[in-house]
Amino acid sequence: MITTTQSAIRGVVEEFVREELSLENAQIAGAVWAMLDAGGKELRPRMTMLAARATNSQASPDPILASYMELIHVATLIHDDVVDNAALRRGRDSTNSVHGNRFSVLAGDYLFAWVFKKITQGYDNPVPTILASMLSEICNGEVKQLKATGNLALRRDEYFEIIGKKTAELFASCAEVGSIVALQRATGASGPKVRDHPTVRALREYGWAFGMGFQVRDDLLDVIASESTIGKPAGSDLRECKVTLPLIAALESGDPTIKELAVRYFRGDGGGDASQTLAVLLEQLRSSVAVAQTKRVVAQYENQALAAIEGLPLSEATAELQALTRTLSEYSS
Amino acid sequence: MITTTQSAIRGVVEEFVREELSLENAQIAGAVWAMLDAGGKELRPRMTMLAARATNSQASPDPILASYMELIHVATLIHDDVVDNAALRRGRDSTNSVHGNRFSVLAGDYLFAWVFKKITQGYDNPVPTILASMLSEICNGEVKQLKATGNLALRRDEYFEIIGKKTAELFASCAEVGSIVALQRATGASGPKVRDHPTVRALREYGWAFGMGFQVRDDLLDVIASESTIGKPAGSDLRECKVTLPLIAALESGDPTIKELAVRYFRGDGGGDASQTLAVLLEQLRSSVAVAQTKRVVAQYENQALAAIEGLPLSEATAELQALTRTLSEYSS
Repeated sequence: MITTTQSAIRGVVEEFVREELSLENAQIAGAVWAMLDAGGKELRPRMTMLAARATNSQASPDPILASYMELIHVATLIHDDVVDNAALRRGRDSTNSVHGNRFSVLAGDYLFAWVFKKITQGYDNPVPTILASMLSEICNGEVKQLKATGNLALRRDEYFEIIGKKTAELFASCAEVGSIVALQRATGASGPKVRDHPTVRALREYGWAFGMGFQVRDDLLDVIASESTIGKPAGSDLRECKVTLPLIAALESGDPTIKELAVRYFRGDGGGDASQTLAVLLEQLRSSVAVAQTKRVVAQYENQALAAIEGLPLSEATAELQALTRTLSEYSS
Repeated sequence: MITTTQSAIRGVVEEFVREELSLENAQIAGAVWAMLDAGGKELRPRMTMLAARATNSQASPDPILASYMELIHVATLIHDDVVDNAALRRGRDSTNSVHGNRFSVLAGDYLFAWVFKKITQGYDNPVPTILASMLSEICNGEVKQLKATGNLALRRDEYFEIIGKKTAELFASCAEVGSIVALQRATGASGPKVRDHPTVRALREYGWAFGMGFQVRDDLLDVIASESTIGKPAGSDLRECKVTLPLIAALESGDPTIKELAVRYFRGDGGGDASQTLAVLLEQLRSSVAVAQTKRVVAQYENQALAAIEGLPLSEATAELQALTRTLSEYSS
């Protein structure tokens, strides 16, 4: 068993943050620490390390690169919570609730810059370029999502474009840079051509499909799961008038009740009845065909991810990637 | 005359943004465009280009690197205005006033990421590392400044540390990377050792001292200048309880009226009288010894900047750098 279990990875990332980041800015390190401590799933560092091992089974795991990927993710979460005015994250008070928006903007910026400094110091191209491109795609997706707020006419393809940029791009990059660094170390390969290596391409494709499935599942859980499962109140997306696949699917199916409720809630009238409207809308969505349809989309991405790495040599790492992927379509509720 | 006049540089940067950035995200490009169009002084791209020419008088000017430096600056301004809740920037509505804080956070992130992508694609180390380190220092300084808000006991050395990180570091990096890229192109030099070249060190030191003088002057203008000169209401720093050198100097001089007014205003009591207290405090500061003392500090940095490049061969570029520096201690009001 490779040290890629959730708790082992969290330990590695936390140790890294404690040793490295805290030296330079204690206050920001404290905020990051609190967020790691609240316990994410460490999926991104795990994918980074597994992709390295799937590329070269002899590769010694690089917990540092994996930690950087988690820190980029944490930085985007800190800014997301400012953008979304979110009060909770991972079941605890969000950074902006504790320290305010002003600190959160700066802390996210600092983390981005710090990670890029370390990446440009320690990793050859194309790794720094891949990560900078990834970050600009994430922001691009977030801007599109912000623009789409409250747009009940949002189409499926627009939704997929948004989640591709804001979520799948990061998973794709984790798998890609994990694989590239393992290749670079094994073969001395350098330069941008390494991106064309079949294993690198397969793992990037895997990460992308996994990320798509992960986000669609996340958007579904926001509708069907309980607050204790997802660490924030259910229906958060609807509350913020964020249009995601379950709602799009329900509207596409022509459900008149859901349409009427969504229009009323999104229009913002009804005053004190708004939370009542939201609750009914959520209830209707939960029992609509949209749930099964959305689960089907998750399963499609799950299959796409599995297919992407089918051609790789079987190893402990590919087996773990497969097992990780299969969790996408497990629903406890 | 090199094409480093203010309007020529602005033209170059604007053209670059129009051609490159707008292709990728029209909405963000629009916000950046509006900020450039409002007319900054283009000091950072100018310093980048002049440093390149001062290093190698045959260097063809690199308006692209210069544009990236201005765009990093614009990105920090967009986030600053969120952090400061500023309504005006360069005499016009700030990005956050026009598009809201949420868009502004994302637009700043996107710009940072986009510039880093371009920098890692187009420039060899140590340029990407210098710029990432610089950005983490800027954020570090901004966090320290935020933490120091309302602290009337802020010491001179703490103030200098803050402005060193938040302002001087960017000017130092502009001069340094301008010089490095000119050297790399002239000699094929690569690797981090190029930072030790005497010309690179001299220009970095120059940029740093210029930046210090520039920020002290800016903090003084916030006290003594009119809104039409600085593009935002005078006394903005005091209004936000931001402690800068003029106030520190006045408090150090033991002025009892200023102390009493500052304590009262910073404590936030007095209700409707607050703006009256602020006006009187500003008036008192304007006629205090702090003004002459602060001007003396500006002059010291001006001299330090001039001394840093004294050893460089005389050229059109060094003459322009000298002229630029001498504007620091010109006060129209």
